[in-house]
Amino acid sequence: MSLPAQPTSPTVILTGDRPTGPLHLGHFVGSLRNRVAYQNDYKQFIMLADAQALTDNMDDIDKVRRNVVEVALDYLAVGIDPAKSTILIQSQIPELAELTFYYLNMVTVARLERNPTVKAEIALRGFERDIPAGFLTYPASQAADISAFKASIVPVGEDQIPMIEQTNEITRRFNRIAYKDILVECKALVPEMGRLPGTDGKAKMSKSLGNTINLGATAAEITAAVKKVYTDPLHLRVEDPGHLEGNVAFIYLDAFDPDQASLAEMKAHYVRGGLGDSIVKKRLEGVLQDMLAPIRARREELAKDRGYILQMLKQGTAQAREVAARTTDEVKAALGLSYF
Amino acid sequence: MSLPAQPTSPTVILTGDRPTGPLHLGHFVGSLRNRVAYQNDYKQFIMLADAQALTDNMDDIDKVRRNVVEVALDYLAVGIDPAKSTILIQSQIPELAELTFYYLNMVTVARLERNPTVKAEIALRGFERDIPAGFLTYPASQAADISAFKASIVPVGEDQIPMIEQTNEITRRFNRIAYKDILVECKALVPEMGRLPGTDGKAKMSKSLGNTINLGATAAEITAAVKKVYTDPLHLRVEDPGHLEGNVAFIYLDAFDPDQASLAEMKAHYVRGGLGDSIVKKRLEGVLQDMLAPIRARREELAKDRGYILQMLKQGTAQAREVAARTTDEVKAALGLSYF
Repeated sequence: MSLPAQPTSPTVILTGDRPTGPLHLGHFVGSLRNRVAYQNDYKQFIMLADAQALTDNMDDIDKVRRNVVEVALDYLAVGIDPAKSTILIQSQIPELAELTFYYLNMVTVARLERNPTVKAEIALRGFERDIPAGFLTYPASQAADISAFKASIVPVGEDQIPMIEQTNEITRRFNRIAYKDILVECKALVPEMGRLPGTDGKAKMSKSLGNTINLGATAAEITAAVKKVYTDPLHLRVEDPGHLEGNVAFIYLDAFDPDQASLAEMKAHYVRGGLGDSIVKKRLEGVLQDMLAPIRARREELAKDRGYILQMLKQGTAQAREVAARTTDEVKAALGLSYF
Repeated sequence: MSLPAQPTSPTVILTGDRPTGPLHLGHFVGSLRNRVAYQNDYKQFIMLADAQALTDNMDDIDKVRRNVVEVALDYLAVGIDPAKSTILIQSQIPELAELTFYYLNMVTVARLERNPTVKAEIALRGFERDIPAGFLTYPASQAADISAFKASIVPVGEDQIPMIEQTNEITRRFNRIAYKDILVECKALVPEMGRLPGTDGKAKMSKSLGNTINLGATAAEITAAVKKVYTDPLHLRVEDPGHLEGNVAFIYLDAFDPDQASLAEMKAHYVRGGLGDSIVKKRLEGVLQDMLAPIRARREELAKDRGYILQMLKQGTAQAREVAARTTDEVKAALGLSYF
């Protein structure tokens, strides 16, 4: 019995990160874990969005550059396999800028200004009237990234769904102009597990809030972070009944503890009363130390050979560029922009 | 005595046209004539701005594509020499889109909205709120075109001066980020002779107003156009004194008549009274027929070998691309976007 032939057009996933800082547990839960699974079943492109990161980091160019390699290390450390996933650097594929350029003609300024994700991110960054044009127009850039690889699945957080809609609007507009379905519509894939809160209980883990646990954290950093983990402010005495809602220690245990049966018992005990936070935190610390130790070790090992990481990125980028160049040729031909 | 060495960094001029229709006398006066002169003294790049033309011609892609070759024929017919000037097709130089992409981060939306040229053109096209994003952001694209070739002189009409200012703002902003003067500031070169009015007396010759005389016009088309040329509406009888102001027949004679001394006498006669419009128009027709006949003949000859035109465009574009690629490498390196 022979194996079935590799499908010639497997489903394509595009995913990635803005390389603006080390990845943390929030990324692990929200995307990295899934990517390690997806790479076995899909053609997965993972983009280091350095060019997009510049849209609001023009004052800290070095940060973006430096983190390209750091984030690549995080990828490999958690088990993303460059033999299965294609890891690419956005800025090294000029075709992505070219597609962006043409897609800018397929979306109005008013439509971009109405985009809820863009609106929220403009507010978040405090741009107000001083919005860099590249920031307002980044949905066109995102449409370029997705469509260049003809991705039909794009794993994103719920807040990014309007971006996917905008991409599909551009796709449809372009296909109408081209009189054929050159570009592929895509679907947002929202992870079942919601966003992981920060160690301080805030809704989002974020480097700028100082409430993260990085994937490369040292044992001592993990210990210190767990100590500060937000639990139940009403749980003043051990014998008091505790609350699970918003209790970051239990949210993390839900996400990472491999022994969910015994965790269920612990939760029941906590709710009944008689279980101190220190016991819960001790369990959490054990779980995180066990989970992160091999990731950290692998990361440290890989970090010794930056030449290998760059070689891997160069190769992935070259592979990805071939695909993007084919799409760009199709797009430009449909726009009448091929002469020779 | 030996000739002085060719300067290694001659002054660079960038000029060009949106290929949306055949070129006419307005282009001849406003730019083409000057380009024929400039090519002897400067390194001149002439861009067929097909990608920019798409920003407001997405509904008529074929028009843009077709006119790339037509406009190139006009260029060669009037004496632009591809051995002296580099003629390039914008869309075939991906680096121009790439530079645009990065420059979008160096200009705010508010600044683009305040640009008087953009404002005027938005009003002219009736876009109102439905402005394609690519139209609002085209100053960034223009900055990319100018800076890619490190042009320091850009011949433009007076209405385009704000675009040049915007380009220089982006240049300065980028050079500040790069900590060195990678990009070159440019100067607008406004032609001494103002804009040529249309045959109907309207301020601008424009295909959509039907008031043009094309460079490739047939003898019969020239005759018909001159017949309709707007003169002096108060000059009802031959013996009446005539007015020169706004009199298109005399404006064209000023621009094209090789015998300006005898033209001065004719003007004096017209103003005194006793000279009919038909005599003036007869002179104008003779001047235009004489001027356009060799251009038309050369154009028809060249049009027989479109293969040659495409070959010439391919070669010019390849030469231009080398220059643009060097600049783009410098720009990306300064932004930290070089890894391999």
